[in-house]
Amino acid sequence: MNELYQKYKEELSKIADIKGAAALMQWDQEVYMPENSHLVRAQQIATLTSLAHEFFSNPQLKEIIEKLINTLPADSKEIQNVKVSYRDIEKQSKLSNNFINELSKKVSASFDAWQKAYKSSDFLIFKPYLEDLVKLKQQECEIIGYQNHPYDVLLDDFDRGLTVAKTDEVFGQLKGSLQSLLAEILEVQDMKMDFLSQSFHKDFQWEIGKKICNALGFSFLNGRKDLSTHPFTVSMACSDVRITTRIDENNFMEMLWSTIHEVGHALYEQGLNHDDYGLPSGEATSLSIHESQSRLYENNIGKSRAFLYHYWPMIADKFKHVLQGIKFDDFLKTVNYVQPSLIRTNADEVTYHFHIIIRYEIEKALIDGSIKVKDLPDVWNEKYLKYLGIKPSNDREGVLQDVHWSHGSFGYFPTYTLGSLYAAQFFNTINSKTSDLDKQIEVADYNVISQWLNENIYSKGRLFDSDVLCQKACGEPLNSIYFINYIQSKYKDIYSSNTILKTSFI
Amino acid sequence: MNELYQKYKEELSKIADIKGAAALMQWDQEVYMPENSHLVRAQQIATLTSLAHEFFSNPQLKEIIEKLINTLPADSKEIQNVKVSYRDIEKQSKLSNNFINELSKKVSASFDAWQKAYKSSDFLIFKPYLEDLVKLKQQECEIIGYQNHPYDVLLDDFDRGLTVAKTDEVFGQLKGSLQSLLAEILEVQDMKMDFLSQSFHKDFQWEIGKKICNALGFSFLNGRKDLSTHPFTVSMACSDVRITTRIDENNFMEMLWSTIHEVGHALYEQGLNHDDYGLPSGEATSLSIHESQSRLYENNIGKSRAFLYHYWPMIADKFKHVLQGIKFDDFLKTVNYVQPSLIRTNADEVTYHFHIIIRYEIEKALIDGSIKVKDLPDVWNEKYLKYLGIKPSNDREGVLQDVHWSHGSFGYFPTYTLGSLYAAQFFNTINSKTSDLDKQIEVADYNVISQWLNENIYSKGRLFDSDVLCQKACGEPLNSIYFINYIQSKYKDIYSSNTILKTSFI
Repeated sequence: MNELYQKYKEELSKIADIKGAAALMQWDQEVYMPENSHLVRAQQIATLTSLAHEFFSNPQLKEIIEKLINTLPADSKEIQNVKVSYRDIEKQSKLSNNFINELSKKVSASFDAWQKAYKSSDFLIFKPYLEDLVKLKQQECEIIGYQNHPYDVLLDDFDRGLTVAKTDEVFGQLKGSLQSLLAEILEVQDMKMDFLSQSFHKDFQWEIGKKICNALGFSFLNGRKDLSTHPFTVSMACSDVRITTRIDENNFMEMLWSTIHEVGHALYEQGLNHDDYGLPSGEATSLSIHESQSRLYENNIGKSRAFLYHYWPMIADKFKHVLQGIKFDDFLKTVNYVQPSLIRTNADEVTYHFHIIIRYEIEKALIDGSIKVKDLPDVWNEKYLKYLGIKPSNDREGVLQDVHWSHGSFGYFPTYTLGSLYAAQFFNTINSKTSDLDKQIEVADYNVISQWLNENIYSKGRLFDSDVLCQKACGEPLNSIYFINYIQSKYKDIYSSNTILKTSFI
Repeated sequence: MNELYQKYKEELSKIADIKGAAALMQWDQEVYMPENSHLVRAQQIATLTSLAHEFFSNPQLKEIIEKLINTLPADSKEIQNVKVSYRDIEKQSKLSNNFINELSKKVSASFDAWQKAYKSSDFLIFKPYLEDLVKLKQQECEIIGYQNHPYDVLLDDFDRGLTVAKTDEVFGQLKGSLQSLLAEILEVQDMKMDFLSQSFHKDFQWEIGKKICNALGFSFLNGRKDLSTHPFTVSMACSDVRITTRIDENNFMEMLWSTIHEVGHALYEQGLNHDDYGLPSGEATSLSIHESQSRLYENNIGKSRAFLYHYWPMIADKFKHVLQGIKFDDFLKTVNYVQPSLIRTNADEVTYHFHIIIRYEIEKALIDGSIKVKDLPDVWNEKYLKYLGIKPSNDREGVLQDVHWSHGSFGYFPTYTLGSLYAAQFFNTINSKTSDLDKQIEVADYNVISQWLNENIYSKGRLFDSDVLCQKACGEPLNSIYFINYIQSKYKDIYSSNTILKTSFI
């Protein structure tokens, strides 16, 4: 192999080693670290993170990459990798170390302030920090530069190439269709049954979670599952991808959905090219696509009639004391119940996206200066009233509910909804390749799904941006119609099943 | 604070962060890592280790240190730290990166060869690798330089300042006294009772281990205990010190001793100066002193009549199915049974040191060339016959039993015995400061012990070498007489108790 390319690979591999160590320290911090070690651990992680950044910013690496761009054969995988790295370095090198340090200090202070503000449900505590952060992020947009909207710069951080224009278009279509769909569903829906908040034994929850991980193809030879306060997925390498889950005795569904959600993330990481460790071709492409993987598993598969029908006998048996006498169709309706609510993370598949649209609209306007931080609580509450017909009674269940802004993460929220849209579009394509996907899911056979994802998503690494990946995989760019169709047919099925018995379930 | 000293502290703290990450990766590897990640993990650890080495070898750091040596006030803690670091850098910088890489490659190959050789009990597989390693270590001694004996260089790696002359003297005294003591004990000893190899429920073993950790002062706010194949202690920082234990249902005593042993190591690490993170004053001084801490807890405390008397009711109750009808004195005799054996790690407190003396004599002669690798199996077997009266029937239970040489660790073994000698001397000093140490131990009160260790060992960090530390703590340098006295009085007590009832136990 080209000696210079070898050198490039070695440098990226070294950086991946350091990031892998930082990832393990973060995982450990949430899962097993002794209580008194928080301060030292934060410092250790900061040292590793800044080392990785330092090595990646090394001018010698940039030189190697520039030489490679001019010498590697066009259309080779090698040049694709090198071009992605070049784009990364270009963007990163525009920000001075001073600016990065200032931002990182501000984030640290803001996170503390947010925690205090959240505890006492008082936005005013967080306000001055958020003002400073917004100013810094505005500066960042100016430093990096943009063609049409400053917020483009921040969207691009989480989903390379994503713009306000594109998001406005996609979210615009979605918003209209979803509003009328929501009204329809709320009209046809039965009363909610509340058996799900009863006590579900923790050991059984753990066991069911593990069984489902295995069935979906999560490899315990290349990963683990542990308990933590907030569920997450972390990767030290494709051969070491770990998920966590939270078990609340009175919230079985939370365990189930979050486990399947994290498995979706983990399958992506485990499915990346092992041989391309550290290279773009061995990395996930964007947060939107990552989220598409978790949501495809959690929603399109996990919350489907077919999937739940397969696991219903086991679930009903393990938790007979709670579920005795409950019919499967009522279980299906209950876990898919739609209800406008104030807290994003508790939202159902339909109303969820209004939470995101609200945040997207606010972020965009904060960054272009058309709304001010001081007006946030009011703006927030008005938008909730407008889109969901309800209004937070305090800041904690309103504008303070999410941690993202205190981390300086603007541009992150849209990837959640984009994830759902990509998931529906991917799922639709998979469905079109096989005649009986539902029946396969009903017998816990996910081969067609995982094979398609492997060929069209995992194996592509980060060589294509989300929209190009989607075009290649589905033959057209992102289109929210697939999500709307999916929701429509899902709820049509759920509420027609009251009277019409589906043959496959006899 | 002196700005230059601040810079020195920051550099050392950064190196400690990297070493902390490597330590966590090593811990995780033994405890929770998924099976398929061994190769990547080895690479990640190697990257961190070589980064730490690189930063420590940075000529700028050496310059800072040299300036500080000339400007810091004499006798300040600051200058003590800087002088220790200077000595570290001086020794390390004598070895070229090429030499270190060659050694590290050879070690990696040797370890593989040793594993194969061990499996098939065939020294010839390991022989060529060991020959190369010995040659490299001989070269290392010449490069570093020495006054009297090349092996001094290697002893100094694990116990700064230790020499062949000093070790010959101490081991010489020990050998003579121990031989006659061993003969006496073997004569007076009863037959061994074998109730200890019966089944002891794993959950109870875990619970007893945890209880004893707590009682001895191990802080679970600053540490953890997990299961692993081989017990070990690892520190990511004083606030994060982890021990592991192995539980074999048919070997309760192994769990007990190894847990107490690791607690001794861990108390040292947890007791170091938190504020001196990364500095010599915040580090343990030597392997010998580290081992003195584990052995003081395991042997001088853990295997004592007083300690076991305290825990006997709980142990006898938890394991009634095995221990019903067994008298405490028989339990005490059985767990302290002396018997020459072939495997070092299974040896009792008396015969253990012959295993070490044999290895010490062999290493010294290998390094000065007076014995050859090819003759090792014969030399080994002859020495076992001479010192312990038994002879291995194959290489696996002979010359291949320990992993150390395949790691290139020559000079390591002597620290085990030195640890026991220091432990006895420290324990004797503690005993002289209080009137009823036995009675305190009998009621699980370890305050006097931990206070003395804290004042005389933990708080001193790595500012003094082992012998100076001992002189300061005990008023005289290392003297094997304290160990001999300890063994003598211990076995006198155990075998007089058959007839004479001690008042404290009525």
